[in-house]
Amino acid sequence: MDFFKRILASSALPSPLEATIQSVEPLPPSHPYYPLDANIFGYEPNERSTLELVSQFGSGCVLILSITYFVTKRVRPHIPVSDLLTTMWFVLCGCMHLFFEGYVVYNFQRVAGMQGLFGEMWKEYALSDSRYLSRDPFVLCVETVTVVFFGPLSFITAGMVATGHPLRYPFQAIVSLGHLYSDTLYYLTSAYGHYYLNESYSRPEPRYFWGYFVGLNAFWIIVPAVLLYKSVFTCGRVFTAMAKIERTLNASRAVEPAPRGPKSR
Amino acid sequence: MDFFKRILASSALPSPLEATIQSVEPLPPSHPYYPLDANIFGYEPNERSTLELVSQFGSGCVLILSITYFVTKRVRPHIPVSDLLTTMWFVLCGCMHLFFEGYVVYNFQRVAGMQGLFGEMWKEYALSDSRYLSRDPFVLCVETVTVVFFGPLSFITAGMVATGHPLRYPFQAIVSLGHLYSDTLYYLTSAYGHYYLNESYSRPEPRYFWGYFVGLNAFWIIVPAVLLYKSVFTCGRVFTAMAKIERTLNASRAVEPAPRGPKSR
Repeated sequence: MDFFKRILASSALPSPLEATIQSVEPLPPSHPYYPLDANIFGYEPNERSTLELVSQFGSGCVLILSITYFVTKRVRPHIPVSDLLTTMWFVLCGCMHLFFEGYVVYNFQRVAGMQGLFGEMWKEYALSDSRYLSRDPFVLCVETVTVVFFGPLSFITAGMVATGHPLRYPFQAIVSLGHLYSDTLYYLTSAYGHYYLNESYSRPEPRYFWGYFVGLNAFWIIVPAVLLYKSVFTCGRVFTAMAKIERTLNASRAVEPAPRGPKSR
Repeated sequence: MDFFKRILASSALPSPLEATIQSVEPLPPSHPYYPLDANIFGYEPNERSTLELVSQFGSGCVLILSITYFVTKRVRPHIPVSDLLTTMWFVLCGCMHLFFEGYVVYNFQRVAGMQGLFGEMWKEYALSDSRYLSRDPFVLCVETVTVVFFGPLSFITAGMVATGHPLRYPFQAIVSLGHLYSDTLYYLTSAYGHYYLNESYSRPEPRYFWGYFVGLNAFWIIVPAVLLYKSVFTCGRVFTAMAKIERTLNASRAVEPAPRGPKSR
């Protein structure tokens, strides 16, 4: 009887296959990102505090804006305030795109484990969007286009605005539309993940979703929308004025006597 | 002894868990799309042949272009050839975005099983990019932006080009940059899938990859690049001319005698 009990007991033990399956069942997440099962390779926790990272990011922005202010005022002392602010905006964008976003594109495969200042800043930001650490194809591609095209174009546009170049408005429109478009897609793809795939890339605390994800990126919706509007309508005004000048010149030519020719209309 | 043999034999039978696992092992693909394990729900094979679908697509484009040609020539008989071609292009884009791409966005969840003309055209095109049938977040989002913004904007721009509206060049630049940007992202995300995720979304036959995927979409790189270039440099020329006119007017004002005032510089 004991013999049968032992056989029955042994058949209750997990088979090797069942044991393997049990061993790959979800473990508690080894990172603070959402979704909790996001594939984030080689994650190392930050050594700097949130306050330290946010204040260093803010200080960096203030430094870039201040240097641009002083350099622009020196190059063109009577620059209109709106052009000065636009120049400062595009220099800030150029620095963000080329250096800060360039860093995450260059290190896309390994940023989750990086402890430099930019690495820790990205790990802090990724609390609101884990796609930066989980090698998301869309985020990599849109960031690559931003770094390669809109980084240099932002600096070129800043130079054009500061010097009043004739191509300033078309270039301002191009970079601003690029910002608007990429940011719209960035929000939309995240919303798709949230509503259709039931996968939120942001931690649930409001400071991450509303502060970092919505708040920080909203600058790249609001400012480009204003700059694009100004570009389009300044172009429109200039084309209207030019058409008026042409009509006036044609009319004044028409009233001049044309010797022996047919009457001009 | 027979009793022990029966017990041993019964232990060799797959456990319910093992049986379940065996039953979900990869089956031969039930669709012709790549990657072979792509999740394509409710796929129904096309009833129309490739030749029929391609020729109907071509005929549709020719019809749209012909109608636009005749309407534009009637509205503005002396329209320059380049403006006529640009109008035809934007009307074609508007129709494609609003109706053809609108169809796939509206039916994104069920297009794999649809047998209407547009449904079968999309299933034919998806042989070169299965993301249209596998509910890819990026493709849905980029197509939504195209339908909602660039569909109406294409028609507005066509109208502006046909009538020589002052905002024609800024709008031409906006829509063309939108085309360039979305197509670049479309190619890039597919390349990322191919090179980094080892996941090709196109069937391997050259007619799908080079014909449909690269060839058809290349129109939305080449034409917008030309139109954007023309927009930017036309704007630049007009701004240069306007600055010259302003300088001439200021100079002519400066040489007029200013009674009792300080000498103008």
